[in-house]
Amino acid sequence: MLDLPFLPFCILLGCLGIVCVAFVTAWCQHWRGGFALDGSAQMFNWHPVLMVTGMVVLYSAAALVYRLPPAWSGPKLPWKVLHGALALAAFALAVLGLVAVFRFHNDHGTPNMYSLHSWLGLATVLLFSCQVGAAPAPHAPAPCAPCPHLPFPQWLGGFSAFLLPWAPAWLRALYKPVHIFFGSTILMLSMASCVSGINEKLFFSLKNGTTEYKRLPAEAVFANMLGLLILLFGVLVLGALARPSWKRPDADSPDACQVPAPLQGHAR
Amino acid sequence: MLDLPFLPFCILLGCLGIVCVAFVTAWCQHWRGGFALDGSAQMFNWHPVLMVTGMVVLYSAAALVYRLPPAWSGPKLPWKVLHGALALAAFALAVLGLVAVFRFHNDHGTPNMYSLHSWLGLATVLLFSCQVGAAPAPHAPAPCAPCPHLPFPQWLGGFSAFLLPWAPAWLRALYKPVHIFFGSTILMLSMASCVSGINEKLFFSLKNGTTEYKRLPAEAVFANMLGLLILLFGVLVLGALARPSWKRPDADSPDACQVPAPLQGHAR
Repeated sequence: MLDLPFLPFCILLGCLGIVCVAFVTAWCQHWRGGFALDGSAQMFNWHPVLMVTGMVVLYSAAALVYRLPPAWSGPKLPWKVLHGALALAAFALAVLGLVAVFRFHNDHGTPNMYSLHSWLGLATVLLFSCQVGAAPAPHAPAPCAPCPHLPFPQWLGGFSAFLLPWAPAWLRALYKPVHIFFGSTILMLSMASCVSGINEKLFFSLKNGTTEYKRLPAEAVFANMLGLLILLFGVLVLGALARPSWKRPDADSPDACQVPAPLQGHAR
Repeated sequence: MLDLPFLPFCILLGCLGIVCVAFVTAWCQHWRGGFALDGSAQMFNWHPVLMVTGMVVLYSAAALVYRLPPAWSGPKLPWKVLHGALALAAFALAVLGLVAVFRFHNDHGTPNMYSLHSWLGLATVLLFSCQVGAAPAPHAPAPCAPCPHLPFPQWLGGFSAFLLPWAPAWLRALYKPVHIFFGSTILMLSMASCVSGINEKLFFSLKNGTTEYKRLPAEAVFANMLGLLILLFGVLVLGALARPSWKRPDADSPDACQVPAPLQGHAR
């Protein structure tokens, strides 16, 4: 395969992520009346912006942390903290995005959770909450010999310790590929949620004579392009995650003591 | 990771694929009035059935051919033929599925290609046509020494020879990982297309008082479940494709002469 360097690709992904957030914000600001916190349609507008920013862009940033070349050398814990912080920030935005749509529905007497988009979206956030809750962070009480100077990320491992207090190290190491698999799966489901949500919103919003969706007004072209941009971004992120040469070589990890030696091959 | 055997997993996938086809057929037959070829709404019903059967189930079967343990030993060409035949069958069904929806729209004066679902769906089928058209099949005129008794799959390599008549073997071998990457990408896009399509169809169809989508009638529950089943099936297929221990070890391939020795590592 072509020997593509990661950093320029990462910068391209960053730009594309910013474009996605800019597009969804511009759509809601320019065509859907902007933003508010009063339960109106302007409150609903937070939903697409927070979901795209949280479940697609920040989530992808969290997933890609271990692909950054600086993360390959030196202690692993700071990168774990960054991975966890980005994932938690993504999760917080997703929860706020759900609050926005539930509040809008409740204030307008619209039932919640009936469309396939809503089922899929909530299932995706619930899966994500399991990922955050059972993050395979180290929570061994003793400090790791090669990195004793680093603070132990209690807040990151806390969920894991809470949910799996009985889990031995080998089980947590066994869980790591599951965490990685569901990491990509959740991004795929987020992409499908975004596409179905944009499609649904356009059918709801563009119903009148001259702006009907099927007449393809400027808003429809713009939001359709947003959907395709989100898919392009997600596919490129999944491609970067799957590329073997961009994965951190575990054998060189200075905190390899986190998992028993025979299981290191299963770790990230 | 758990040492999961492929064959039971493959049988589970087969059952799940059949359930998806049965669900989409039952939806269209029981709630949407069945099937016809007269440009009516019953003609439209072929669209979801053919798309789910072609772009999700048959497409996945084609992608998984090389993961079957019998494909790991013996000559590779028969498995290439099976892979190509299943992919071509999937493509044919997808084209027929497009014909069904274009005919329905044209007969009802509905514009084509305005929704995000239609943009994504057509882009997915076009990407698939590029995959079929530029399939990295062998088209060396001389027979391969270890497998001279096998017929050369002209029909499979024909597209490749037509689209890339100037391409040397090293370029085709270089293209193989691209073919594999887009293979998974197309399945992901198909899943997103199906979800957005089911969501859109339910909003179109369930508009009246007692059967409104937001009242969640039986049809809505059934079709929402179909969407989730398609996603579950697709995610499991993508997981199976990504699992390293289920990939055919290339070094043992008896038709390794199809690509120059230095590039065999890039081949499937």
